[in-house]
Amino acid sequence: MTVTPSRDLSIAEVRLTPVLVADPPLLNTQGVHQPYTPRLIVEVVTRGGVTGLGETYGDTKYLELARPLAENLTGHQIGDLNGLFTAAERIAVDRSHVAERVDVGGLRGVQTADKLRLSVVSAFEVACLDALGQALGLPVHALLGGKVRDTVDYSAYLFYKWAAHPEGVPAEPDDWGAALDPAGVVAQARRLTERYGFTSYKLKGGVFPPDEEIAAVRALAEAFPGRPLRLDPNGAWSVETSVKVAEELREVLEYLEDPALGTPAMAEVAARTGVPLATNMCVTTFGEIEEAFTRGAVQVVLSDHHYWGGLRRTQHLAAVCAAFGVGLSMHSNTHLGISLAAMTHVAATVPHLHHACDTHYPWQSEDVLTERVALTDGKVAVSDAPGLGVRLDRDRLAFLHRRWADDDGRHRDRDDAAALRAAVPGWTTPAMPRW
Amino acid sequence: MTVTPSRDLSIAEVRLTPVLVADPPLLNTQGVHQPYTPRLIVEVVTRGGVTGLGETYGDTKYLELARPLAENLTGHQIGDLNGLFTAAERIAVDRSHVAERVDVGGLRGVQTADKLRLSVVSAFEVACLDALGQALGLPVHALLGGKVRDTVDYSAYLFYKWAAHPEGVPAEPDDWGAALDPAGVVAQARRLTERYGFTSYKLKGGVFPPDEEIAAVRALAEAFPGRPLRLDPNGAWSVETSVKVAEELREVLEYLEDPALGTPAMAEVAARTGVPLATNMCVTTFGEIEEAFTRGAVQVVLSDHHYWGGLRRTQHLAAVCAAFGVGLSMHSNTHLGISLAAMTHVAATVPHLHHACDTHYPWQSEDVLTERVALTDGKVAVSDAPGLGVRLDRDRLAFLHRRWADDDGRHRDRDDAAALRAAVPGWTTPAMPRW
Repeated sequence: MTVTPSRDLSIAEVRLTPVLVADPPLLNTQGVHQPYTPRLIVEVVTRGGVTGLGETYGDTKYLELARPLAENLTGHQIGDLNGLFTAAERIAVDRSHVAERVDVGGLRGVQTADKLRLSVVSAFEVACLDALGQALGLPVHALLGGKVRDTVDYSAYLFYKWAAHPEGVPAEPDDWGAALDPAGVVAQARRLTERYGFTSYKLKGGVFPPDEEIAAVRALAEAFPGRPLRLDPNGAWSVETSVKVAEELREVLEYLEDPALGTPAMAEVAARTGVPLATNMCVTTFGEIEEAFTRGAVQVVLSDHHYWGGLRRTQHLAAVCAAFGVGLSMHSNTHLGISLAAMTHVAATVPHLHHACDTHYPWQSEDVLTERVALTDGKVAVSDAPGLGVRLDRDRLAFLHRRWADDDGRHRDRDDAAALRAAVPGWTTPAMPRW
Repeated sequence: MTVTPSRDLSIAEVRLTPVLVADPPLLNTQGVHQPYTPRLIVEVVTRGGVTGLGETYGDTKYLELARPLAENLTGHQIGDLNGLFTAAERIAVDRSHVAERVDVGGLRGVQTADKLRLSVVSAFEVACLDALGQALGLPVHALLGGKVRDTVDYSAYLFYKWAAHPEGVPAEPDDWGAALDPAGVVAQARRLTERYGFTSYKLKGGVFPPDEEIAAVRALAEAFPGRPLRLDPNGAWSVETSVKVAEELREVLEYLEDPALGTPAMAEVAARTGVPLATNMCVTTFGEIEEAFTRGAVQVVLSDHHYWGGLRRTQHLAAVCAAFGVGLSMHSNTHLGISLAAMTHVAATVPHLHHACDTHYPWQSEDVLTERVALTDGKVAVSDAPGLGVRLDRDRLAFLHRRWADDDGRHRDRDDAAALRAAVPGWTTPAMPRW
């Protein structure tokens, strides 16, 4: 069997398009989402004429790595996914972007050079898989060993939220209204459920004193009896506070996510409560697994294919978790439909995925696709179309890129504390633990 | 892009061909290799007309699982590798074949129902990957993420050996001669080196009292100064003996393989010596990893894609090992060229493979391929041809199958102790530890 010219699977070009997408004023312990969040759209074009899509964080530090990587990939075989990582390893990372500690600004755990590289190369890996699948007539899940389920469950991602971004800040309006107390959170959950059919709920916490957030979770438990509930304060609590909240909510929580910062604190909380602990902060790289697992610090890892290094490494993470009896679910940051499609394909192939995945997608009214990825009954159907099964809307891409190009620089690097300063003068990232 | 009829990737038929292949009288702590060893050749034929090859253990207990699995796969998509495992899970395993303990007869660790299934389904996975690669025009390594090296290192597998099988036992002659003392082992190593260019050496031990095997390893160290050396007594030693041997050989051993049986004993040996311990006996399933790794019982896992469940799960094992700083190499049992090709493809894709792999292949004068897989400079070149890059010789397959069909039953189930009884009347599997 020979490869015909139209089947040329080598890379002719990689196009990088940074965009700014509208983001509602969602609150977290560091601050509030800015009106626009940067994302990077990666297009891998083969010499055979196929274009594959990927998406990742769009802040400057990611762009700086993506550009030389893109330039080095001309002629690279799209099936050579391991080679993408080798190519990325050759690219130097600006030391100012690296810190061997929890990145409290980014809420995404340690920030090492390797993790930055992985966060970039993952989008290239997804784009190559999309292109390969299109060229071969196979869905991405079939390139990952095949789906073991036809739909992937997602949970409703609830946020404390203002009705609008601060006055005087240019922003797109949203129709979700405010959610600043238990009643507001329950109303938001009801609305998300009406629109998308969710059957599990996660509240982003760490915004108000723990008692208020306990009350919000209790209100959710009353409004949605028996439904899995999660609370995620992004490490804002001390061990004592974490244990107290866990004990108060133990009857209703599916798991408690990152109550305290770092593996030692998480291990102590885990030892003192029966509520499972989940994380996307103390275990975000393969190098952090050993300590956390051997200390029993986490019972559920929330994978994120962006910073774990793509879809195949997410499967590897799943295998590590399965071997150690640790659960797996999926973390989300502000993202568009390309990433939701990628998350869905890999989630479909992982046998031991026992929790609904997180997604910000309902909060993103804008996308770069001709058709939004559908969320129905709280699920995304696994596409059997070749590749990811999504199509780029070039007009939308151009529009969102123009917003990025025209930006005065304030939104090109996500900064939730800066956004909050527009409403609360002098606000800075709080010292942890806050409570 | 549409799938053309000739690209139909669904399974039309799975052909199973048990064979008996000539095996020299290689000694181990349980007994000696029988003159003929059973292997199972799996052919997956797609409706598009492509045939993929796989190979695994051929004993009756594997055949009994392979047959219903083969029958259930008509119409299955060859890209749906995960679905193979789901199909295998539905097949009941005869309880008499299962023991939740170290399988002292088989030298392959615990023998659970799951592991038996994996040992069978792995050959189907390899055959599907071979067929998929051929249909898509991609080498198997490209279906596994791409090779990170162009050649894979193998070590010379040295055995204590008789010149011939016992008198009166029908067998094929071999030209390797006897190796029953240090001089014989060194002579065998030299000959293997001349023929195949090996640069590292493993001696299968547990055959003679430890002092004799220590002397053999010392003779190898003298004959091949600076070359990596390994000794594998298959768990035949007590902790005390293991520690003593490790200390005596610490200057020359790359690692000591399975000196003692079971994770607790291995952990004790590891704690008392600086020589790295390798295993293909106490960690042979994902379920055994946690205890062994957290106790520091093993420093190198010898993967075997047959019983770990195929090439993708071997990659998953590699990821687990990498996360815990545990080394990876590859175990071998009597096998043919299909398995050597499969081992080479997956080994080519694993970044953290820091040791040469084991292979029995030089001991197998017979094969089912039109052309033997070449071992040069101790390496196998990674094939870039579509699929595995090997071709079945149907005449040879038929010949070796006829031997199986005509067998009186003595060789259809490997039994090294029975083979030794032909020379040592009354021999039974020794109680462990022997020394």
